[in-house]
Amino acid sequence: METQSATSTQTSTQTPTPRRLAEHVFALHHGGKMAITPTVPLRGPEDLSLAYTPGVAEVCTAIAGQPDLVHDYTWVSHTVAVVTDGTAVLGLGDIGPQASLPVMEGKAVLFKQFGDVDAVPIALATTDVDEIVQTVARLAPSFGGINLEDISAPRCFEIERKLQDRVDIPVFHDDQHGTAVVTLAALRNAARLTGRTLDDLRAVISGAGAAGVAIAKILVEAGIGDVVVTDRAGVLHSGRTDLTDVKRDIAVNTNRAGRTGALEEALAGADVFIGVSGGTVPEAAVATMAPGAFVFAMANPTPEIHPEVAHKYASVVATGRSDYPNQINNVLAFPGIFAGALRVRASRITPGMKIAAADALASLIAEELRPDHIIPSPFDPRVAPAVANAVAEAARRDGVARV
Amino acid sequence: METQSATSTQTSTQTPTPRRLAEHVFALHHGGKMAITPTVPLRGPEDLSLAYTPGVAEVCTAIAGQPDLVHDYTWVSHTVAVVTDGTAVLGLGDIGPQASLPVMEGKAVLFKQFGDVDAVPIALATTDVDEIVQTVARLAPSFGGINLEDISAPRCFEIERKLQDRVDIPVFHDDQHGTAVVTLAALRNAARLTGRTLDDLRAVISGAGAAGVAIAKILVEAGIGDVVVTDRAGVLHSGRTDLTDVKRDIAVNTNRAGRTGALEEALAGADVFIGVSGGTVPEAAVATMAPGAFVFAMANPTPEIHPEVAHKYASVVATGRSDYPNQINNVLAFPGIFAGALRVRASRITPGMKIAAADALASLIAEELRPDHIIPSPFDPRVAPAVANAVAEAARRDGVARV
Repeated sequence: METQSATSTQTSTQTPTPRRLAEHVFALHHGGKMAITPTVPLRGPEDLSLAYTPGVAEVCTAIAGQPDLVHDYTWVSHTVAVVTDGTAVLGLGDIGPQASLPVMEGKAVLFKQFGDVDAVPIALATTDVDEIVQTVARLAPSFGGINLEDISAPRCFEIERKLQDRVDIPVFHDDQHGTAVVTLAALRNAARLTGRTLDDLRAVISGAGAAGVAIAKILVEAGIGDVVVTDRAGVLHSGRTDLTDVKRDIAVNTNRAGRTGALEEALAGADVFIGVSGGTVPEAAVATMAPGAFVFAMANPTPEIHPEVAHKYASVVATGRSDYPNQINNVLAFPGIFAGALRVRASRITPGMKIAAADALASLIAEELRPDHIIPSPFDPRVAPAVANAVAEAARRDGVARV
Repeated sequence: METQSATSTQTSTQTPTPRRLAEHVFALHHGGKMAITPTVPLRGPEDLSLAYTPGVAEVCTAIAGQPDLVHDYTWVSHTVAVVTDGTAVLGLGDIGPQASLPVMEGKAVLFKQFGDVDAVPIALATTDVDEIVQTVARLAPSFGGINLEDISAPRCFEIERKLQDRVDIPVFHDDQHGTAVVTLAALRNAARLTGRTLDDLRAVISGAGAAGVAIAKILVEAGIGDVVVTDRAGVLHSGRTDLTDVKRDIAVNTNRAGRTGALEEALAGADVFIGVSGGTVPEAAVATMAPGAFVFAMANPTPEIHPEVAHKYASVVATGRSDYPNQINNVLAFPGIFAGALRVRASRITPGMKIAAADALASLIAEELRPDHIIPSPFDPRVAPAVANAVAEAARRDGVARV
């Protein structure tokens, strides 16, 4: 995902022999990480005559007459494209489409493993916004949904919006919304644990890329007291003249108190820090946060605030790393979100569906809520089904479900 | 494939209860015919850290530095896109991209089953030649080859040519070349069986669509004595003013004797009839063919010349149907051709590779050659490996192999 933020597990600091780890990684990746499996038998001519010609013509004719049947009789109903242009891959940046493919295959493997969603990597040989939109719109009949991945900001915002306007299947930029959903879930549980409510909290988001923008939007949608977003030049506010359209929109819809200045100034008295920037926050600034603050320092591999420092001042600490408690990991969200959306043939993913996903995630640890356990493990088998159910229900409520 | 020609098995005349067959077909197709399978384990956080972040970054970085490594470390090395615009699906014609998907999935299943090639259906929401070329060129980094499928003539010729000019992976329109390869294999064996050589034969091809054009080209390339191609208006010859560019090219490069007139006139004295038109040839015309002629009447479900009629005049008879001997079936060719091309990372499929595929197919029944057995069964397990080996070798010979 873009810059160094929240999808990653991280073990390199624990690894005694990096060279052997690398050998292991390359051996594992040899030949790629996925394959196609036929789900029908092909033992002889009769099977062939049913699965292929002439039998298949019956199915084609039925779909031609009633297009919705494509969901019943093809893999479209359970398959998404994982689309990238390779411009913002992990923390590696613009490495191009082919070099991004191992990540896209990894994503596809996670889709299958955690959500029973089939996913196909599509790495595009163009970085032009309109060409990407056009290309993906043209191949959309082959899929039940589009997961945009590792596309740099601010292009990712325009691509998602324009593409969703052109197709009637869900378009979901995971680097934005997956991170936002899991962050909201963690924040809900941190608040519950400490007897706070969202409207009681002021959050500061460091980073106005894909993840930062989406987190700001979902927090506003979920009723946060106030949120301030910062980029390298400081707080986003309406007086700034250097903002992209997306940042301007964020500036207008956040920062009710009209703050200006640097991240450090915004942090004074804040209840929540959310880091998706990859920078470093000085301990002195952390010390100025409100008592009992929450610190979600999600940059990988180096959190913006080291957990040990954060614990000195904060009541709840989360990171993007698997080797600390409370990992904010997108894999908690995207498999279940698409599984739910596909199940009801949703035409898009609404804000309500994202918030429902976050609530379902948060609810999963109702009984075991602790400061070091505000979010489930990706390997908790209840995660994807709970998220999928909540998302499907919200899609019906929001009128975007088609079955 | 386009019109009613040579890919199909055909059992409907044998089926006592069409309604139950249809029920069976729909039940079989429920949920589609394929799925993604991860080929790496994902049992816990450590697996995740190798197959996905942070481990995967090592692999991405390696490919960014040395792009060829994409073949070693992603599924690109064994994966093709099966691309259609839905304009010429089976004998159903222009039924659109979504209704074509059951055929594309069937094709993908055949790729896997017969060639161990992974294939992804891509049905496009455009029928514009340049848009198709542009779209497929943009998604080409995600695949090791492009199998074009069920795209109507003459657009299919231009799409294949323009696309191959833009990408450095093989582009193969199976409705053309798959049919041509299997036809040449059958013709080689029919000639061998009867002590003839190709340069000794005059063939008449009924049908100047995708299959007819490709068969004409491969027969010329393979050194046939002469070939005459006919369309609905009769023999293609240089004097005709109603020809598309592709047909004009065929007219110039075939028909050495400068014949004109109808199919029936061309058939008089001809050694070979190849039907890929779906029309009907009167018995009286068949009776005028040279003694010991070969009749390959490949239209499905109704051959241009009924096999019983053909046998009265011909020494060897083939059809496109699985319920008669000598079925000309594309599945004998495309899985092995792509398996061989992918193995050596071929940049394209040359005429030499197609002829090598045909020769390998023909050679497989060296010992058991009989008038009712000139071509192997699709379920003969030797087929794809033999074709793949021959194609890989030819790719090296032709200088298009990259390993």
